[in-house]
Amino acid sequence: MFSNDSTIRAGVLGASGYIGGEVMRYVALHPNLRLEFATANRDAGRPIGDVLPNLRAFFPQEFLSADAGEARAGDADVVFLALPHSESQDVVPRLAARHPDTTWIDLAGDFRTPDPDGFAKYYGGPHRAPDLLDRFVYGFTEGQTDALPGARLIANPGCFATGVLLALFPLLNTGMLSDPICVTALTGSSGSGREPRPTTHHPERAQNLRAYKMLRHQHLLEVEWFLNGRSDSEIRLQFVPQSAPIVRGIFTTLFLPGKPAEAVLDLMETAYGASPLIDVTPASPDLRVVQSTPRAVIGVAGAEDRGAVVFSAIDNLGKGAAGQAIQNMNRALGLAETAGLDWPGGYV
Amino acid sequence: MFSNDSTIRAGVLGASGYIGGEVMRYVALHPNLRLEFATANRDAGRPIGDVLPNLRAFFPQEFLSADAGEARAGDADVVFLALPHSESQDVVPRLAARHPDTTWIDLAGDFRTPDPDGFAKYYGGPHRAPDLLDRFVYGFTEGQTDALPGARLIANPGCFATGVLLALFPLLNTGMLSDPICVTALTGSSGSGREPRPTTHHPERAQNLRAYKMLRHQHLLEVEWFLNGRSDSEIRLQFVPQSAPIVRGIFTTLFLPGKPAEAVLDLMETAYGASPLIDVTPASPDLRVVQSTPRAVIGVAGAEDRGAVVFSAIDNLGKGAAGQAIQNMNRALGLAETAGLDWPGGYV
Amino acid sequence: MFSNDSTIRAGVLGASGYIGGEVMRYVALHPNLRLEFATANRDAGRPIGDVLPNLRAFFPQEFLSADAGEARAGDADVVFLALPHSESQDVVPRLAARHPDTTWIDLAGDFRTPDPDGFAKYYGGPHRAPDLLDRFVYGFTEGQTDALPGARLIANPGCFATGVLLALFPLLNTGMLSDPICVTALTGSSGSGREPRPTTHHPERAQNLRAYKMLRHQHLLEVEWFLNGRSDSEIRLQFVPQSAPIVRGIFTTLFLPGKPAEAVLDLMETAYGASPLIDVTPASPDLRVVQSTPRAVIGVAGAEDRGAVVFSAIDNLGKGAAGQAIQNMNRALGLAETAGLDWPGGYV
Amino acid sequence: MFSNDSTIRAGVLGASGYIGGEVMRYVALHPNLRLEFATANRDAGRPIGDVLPNLRAFFPQEFLSADAGEARAGDADVVFLALPHSESQDVVPRLAARHPDTTWIDLAGDFRTPDPDGFAKYYGGPHRAPDLLDRFVYGFTEGQTDALPGARLIANPGCFATGVLLALFPLLNTGMLSDPICVTALTGSSGSGREPRPTTHHPERAQNLRAYKMLRHQHLLEVEWFLNGRSDSEIRLQFVPQSAPIVRGIFTTLFLPGKPAEAVLDLMETAYGASPLIDVTPASPDLRVVQSTPRAVIGVAGAEDRGAVVFSAIDNLGKGAAGQAIQNMNRALGLAETAGLDWPGGYV
Repeated sequence: MFSNDSTIRAGVLGASGYIGGEVMRYVALHPNLRLEFATANRDAGRPIGDVLPNLRAFFPQEFLSADAGEARAGDADVVFLALPHSESQDVVPRLAARHPDTTWIDLAGDFRTPDPDGFAKYYGGPHRAPDLLDRFVYGFTEGQTDALPGARLIANPGCFATGVLLALFPLLNTGMLSDPICVTALTGSSGSGREPRPTTHHPERAQNLRAYKMLRHQHLLEVEWFLNGRSDSEIRLQFVPQSAPIVRGIFTTLFLPGKPAEAVLDLMETAYGASPLIDVTPASPDLRVVQSTPRAVIGVAGAEDRGAVVFSAIDNLGKGAAGQAIQNMNRALGLAETAGLDWPGGYV
Repeated sequence: MFSNDSTIRAGVLGASGYIGGEVMRYVALHPNLRLEFATANRDAGRPIGDVLPNLRAFFPQEFLSADAGEARAGDADVVFLALPHSESQDVVPRLAARHPDTTWIDLAGDFRTPDPDGFAKYYGGPHRAPDLLDRFVYGFTEGQTDALPGARLIANPGCFATGVLLALFPLLNTGMLSDPICVTALTGSSGSGREPRPTTHHPERAQNLRAYKMLRHQHLLEVEWFLNGRSDSEIRLQFVPQSAPIVRGIFTTLFLPGKPAEAVLDLMETAYGASPLIDVTPASPDLRVVQSTPRAVIGVAGAEDRGAVVFSAIDNLGKGAAGQAIQNMNRALGLAETAGLDWPGGYV
Repeated sequence: MFSNDSTIRAGVLGASGYIGGEVMRYVALHPNLRLEFATANRDAGRPIGDVLPNLRAFFPQEFLSADAGEARAGDADVVFLALPHSESQDVVPRLAARHPDTTWIDLAGDFRTPDPDGFAKYYGGPHRAPDLLDRFVYGFTEGQTDALPGARLIANPGCFATGVLLALFPLLNTGMLSDPICVTALTGSSGSGREPRPTTHHPERAQNLRAYKMLRHQHLLEVEWFLNGRSDSEIRLQFVPQSAPIVRGIFTTLFLPGKPAEAVLDLMETAYGASPLIDVTPASPDLRVVQSTPRAVIGVAGAEDRGAVVFSAIDNLGKGAAGQAIQNMNRALGLAETAGLDWPGGYV
Repeated sequence: MFSNDSTIRAGVLGASGYIGGEVMRYVALHPNLRLEFATANRDAGRPIGDVLPNLRAFFPQEFLSADAGEARAGDADVVFLALPHSESQDVVPRLAARHPDTTWIDLAGDFRTPDPDGFAKYYGGPHRAPDLLDRFVYGFTEGQTDALPGARLIANPGCFATGVLLALFPLLNTGMLSDPICVTALTGSSGSGREPRPTTHHPERAQNLRAYKMLRHQHLLEVEWFLNGRSDSEIRLQFVPQSAPIVRGIFTTLFLPGKPAEAVLDLMETAYGASPLIDVTPASPDLRVVQSTPRAVIGVAGAEDRGAVVFSAIDNLGKGAAGQAIQNMNRALGLAETAGLDWPGGYV
C-alpha cells in the first residue's frame, strides 16, 4: 500500500492543543508525511506558525475551522484526531463512514475499549457512538503486533495507560503479578492540556507535589480491559496518579513484592529486545532522557529480601500520545516502525 | 526545669550544612533559645551571616571550629548535632559523658535504633559506639509521648522515616495494614545536603524524576525497628524513594488495598487530633503548604471498590529534621510543644 | 497611640488572592495584630483554612462577603485592601470617610500618585476618586521617613516599583544617575495573581523566559513620579520587566555606565545602614535568600573600565507587598519598624 | 568537495561534556555525518550509550581515550573539539598541522580572537599557541558569509557571544547604537557544564536568580573584537550575565534608548530574512520555543516616548554551541546551511 518512499497525506484535527501540536511536530519530522490540512477551531484562519511558533518554519499554512477541515477529510490518507474530550465520538461516525479508505487515529479517550458501560462510568456519561466501539484497534503498539497492520480505525492509548502497560504487559501470565498490584505514576503538567487551570497555575505547581483521581482515574478502564482480555487471572490495579512539577513525562512505579528482580528483568528484555524505541535497564530510568522524544525506558530493580520494582519512563506527548500515534500509523500503513521517529533527545 | 519564660542556651554542631543551617533558623525563630555557639569546621572563623546570608541579621557571631565548639559544649543547655554522616558516634561518647546535664539531639543516622547489626548492614560498617545505642530516645515525636520528657539523648528521625511513620503509625494494630505494605516517597533536592553531586546538578535534576535505593534505603532500618517494637504482627515495607525536582519536601504515598478510606481517616483524625502541627484532610495534601515549615499534612483518599491510600506531606528540613528536633527539645525540656514552631508558611 | 504592647485589630479586604493571603500570613506573624475580619467575596462563608490551608491553624474564622466586611470596617484599627485591580477607588471613598480614625493601607495601584492623567494613561481609564489621590502617602518606606507616622491613608508601592526604588532612590542627586537609566526586573509568577492565565500556565512558564510591557509597565508612573518629586534633574527610565520561572521574588538590575562601584556601594550603605530589613552587599544578591520574607538585599558590583551595576532582590509578596504594608503600618501607628517582621527565611 | 549526498566522517573530542554530548546528538541528527570516533578521557572504554543514554540507540561505539582519539584524527573529515577550557590550544597545534585537510571546529574559547593580550586578560593567563590565533575563522555564522566556505580552522563563538551578536550585529553602522550599550543575558544551568558546582546545585539554583562576572565576562573579548573590526565607531558593552533557573537557553536584552522600534525591526528583518534558522518577531520571544533546537528568535519592541529593546533567544547548547558548529561545518564544506538542522522543537 505505502512504502518507505511514499508520500502520505496527513490531516490533523484539533491541532493547536498540546497533543495536536505535538502531532504536528511529529508530522514535520516524518519523511513520508505531508501536511494536507490542520484544524484549530478557535484559531481558524491564523497562520499555524503564529499559534505554534515552534513550527513557523515548517508549515506555511493557516489553520482551518472544524467544518473546513471536515470538508477536506477526503484529501488525507491518514487523519489524526486530537480533539477535546469526547468530541471524537461525534466526528468519527460522520467522517469515517464517508472516507473508509482513510486511516483514522483518535488520540482521545472515546474509542479505547469496546465497553460502553465502562465508558459511562469513567467518563461521566453514555457513549454516543457505541456501535463503533468494537471496530477500533487499541493502539498499545508493543502489545498489538497483529492487529495494527491494515487497521483503519485506531484508538491511541492514554498517556498514563501507556506508562502502566509498558511496565505491566510483559509480566502477564508469568507468575510475576499477584494481587494487589500497586502502581504510582507521576505526570508532567502538559498532560493537563493547553487550558490554564488552578492545578497547572505556575505558582501552585512549580514546587508542589500532589495526587489526584486516586484509585479512580479513567485510564484504569482501558488498562484493565486490555490486560484482562489477555490474562489468565483477573487484573485489578491500585493506581495513584500524581502531579509533578515537570512539563513533560510520565514516570511509573510498579511494585512486585516478593518477586525476583533478575527474572523480571529477563522478561522485560525478552519483551522489548526487538523494540527499537524502548530501552531496558537494570536501574531506575532518568525521565529526562525520554522527554521530548517518542522513546521509552523500562527499569527494573530489587532487593533479594523484599522483591522487585519496575519503572517506565515516557514522554506523555511522545510515546504517550503523538509518538505512539505515528508508530501505530507506521504499522498500519506498512512503513518501517521507526519511520520519522528515529531521532534522539538531549542528555539534558 | 525550664519553663516557657526560660532562656535556654543552644549549641549547634555542623551548622553550615542544610540541616544545620535550618536548625540555626529554628533557633532564631524560638523565643526561648539563645545561640551560645555554632560550629562549621570548613567555615571556622567566618561570620555566620557570610555563610548563611538568610541569618545575617540574626547572628552576629562567627562559626567556631569543631574543636572550639567541643570546648564550649558545657555552656549549652541543649546541643544539636547536624554533623556529616557517622561523625556523631565519635563526638557523642566524648561529650555527652562530660556534660550529662546537657540535652543532646542528634540529627544524623547514628543512634536511631539499638540494633548495631542493622546499623552495620544499612550504613556500611560497624558502629563505633554500640554501648550508647540503647540510651537514646528515638524522637518520632507523635509516637513517643512518654519517652521524651526529661530525655538527655535524643536521636532525631530521618526525613523519609518521619514521612513514612506519620502515614503508618496510627494504623498499627488496627487491622488496616496487611502485607505487602507498598510505599513511595518523593523527596526534594535539599535532602541530599549542601555538597553538589550529579543527582543534584541542576541541569540533570530540574525536569527529571528517578528512583534510588529501591527497597534498600537506610531509613527502612529505623522505621521497621520502631514499628515492629509496637506491632502485633511483623511489619515489612516495600519502600521506593524517588527524587523530585523540588527543593524542599517529602511526599509519601502508602497503599492500603481493600481497606475503607473512611475508617482510615477516622484513625488519622483520632491519632493527630491533638497534634497542633499536623493537619488531617480527606484528600491529597499539597506539598507546598508545608514547605519551609515544621508542619505536616496527612491525607486519606480511596475508592469503594479498590481501597484506600494515605499521604503524608512534610518539609524534609522542617518536620523531617530541624522542626522535629525543636519539637523534641520542647518536650524534653518541658516547654509547650509548639514553642518557636507556631508560625505559618506561605500559600505559594 | 499604639505601643509595642498594644493589640491592634486588623481587617483584610480581598484576603484570598496571593497578596491578600500573604497579608493574612503577616497578620498571623505579627505579635500585635489580631484579625478582626477578612473578606473574600467568591469564598464568603468558607473557613479561611479551607481556602488558605497554610493558615488553617491560625484563623478559625470564615471569610466574609465584601458587604459584610464593609459593615465590620469600623471594628478595625487598620484595614488592608488587597482587592482586584481598580476596586479600591470605589471602596476607599465610601469607607474611609465613615471611619476616619482607621488606618487604610491600599495594596493596589489606585492611589499611588496624585496624578489622575498618569493614572488614566497607564491604567487604561479615568480615575473615579481623583479628589482622594493627594491625600494618600506613598508607602515606599525607606524613602518616606517623615510622612508615614500618623498617616491614615497609605498607598503601598507596586512590587516592581519597590524593587526599582530600592536600587535607585539612594542615588538621586548624587551625580551617579545619568540618562539613559536602563533597568531590567525579573519577576516570579505569583506576581500575576491567583487567576490562572496563559503566561502562568506551568507548561509554558516552567522553563521559559520572556519580557512583557516593555518600556510601558504601569509601575513607571509611580516610580518616575516619586523620584522626579525629589530629583534635581529629570528621571526617565528604560524599564523592561521580564517573567522568570520562579514563584516568588523580583530581581532588579540597574546599569550605571561609567560610574565607580565603590562610591555607589558607599551610598547604598549610608542609605540603608540603619534599615533593619535591608542588607547591602558588594556582589550580586541571591534572590532565594529573601524569598518568603519581608527583607531586601542590595548588591553593587562593577568593573573599573566600564562602570557599575546595582541589584535589588525582594520577594514580590513580601517587601513588594505584604511586608512593606506591615512596615508602613508599624511606622504609621508608632510601633517598632520590624514588629512582626523580624524572622528569617531559609537558606534554600 | 562535499555535496548534499556525501558521507562525511566526523570525530568528536571531549564528547561526554554537555557541549560535546550535544555535538554528538547533532551528529546523530545529520544525514551526511557518520561518527568515526569520539573521545571522553574519563569514560574511555565505556559504551557511548552508558554515558549518554539519550544516544544509546544511535551509537554502538565506545568512547576512546584522548590519546586514542588523536591517533584516529586522520580518519575524520571534520573534528569537533569540545574539550575542557584551554585544552584546545595544546591539541590543535599538534593535530591540525598533521592533518591539514581536516576541518577543525573548536567550541572552546581558545581561538576566538587574534588578540593574545585580550586572551591573557580575560582567560587568566598567556596563550600557548598565539601563532595560530589569526588563522582561525570566527564562526558567528550570520556575520561571516564569506569567510566560512573552505575554512579549515573555525572557532565557534561562545554562547553569550552568540546571543549578544545576534541582537547587535545588524545594528552596526546604522545609527541605532549609541553609547552606553546596556545588555543583560540570562542563561540556563547547562551553560556551566557537566561538573556539579555550588551555583548549579539544584537546591540553590532551582528558584534563584543572580548575576555573575558583572561587566567582566570573558565573552566580552570576542564580541567587542568582532564588532569593532566592523564598526565605524567604538563599541563598548555594559554586559551583565545572569543565572536563571532553567536548563537550556540564553535570553538576551539589549537597550536602545531613544531609538525607533519600527526601524530596528526593519533592520532585523533585512538582516535575517534569508536566514532559515532565525525568526524575527515584533514582540518578546518565548525562550522555550528554541530550547533544544539550533534555532534563534529575535524580538523587537518599544514605546514611542522612550525607545526600543531588542531580544534574542537561543539554546546555549544549540545555536550557542553544537547547532552553530554544524551550521559552520555545513558552510565550510559546501553543504546546505540547514543540512541536519531542519527539525522543530516542541511548543512546550
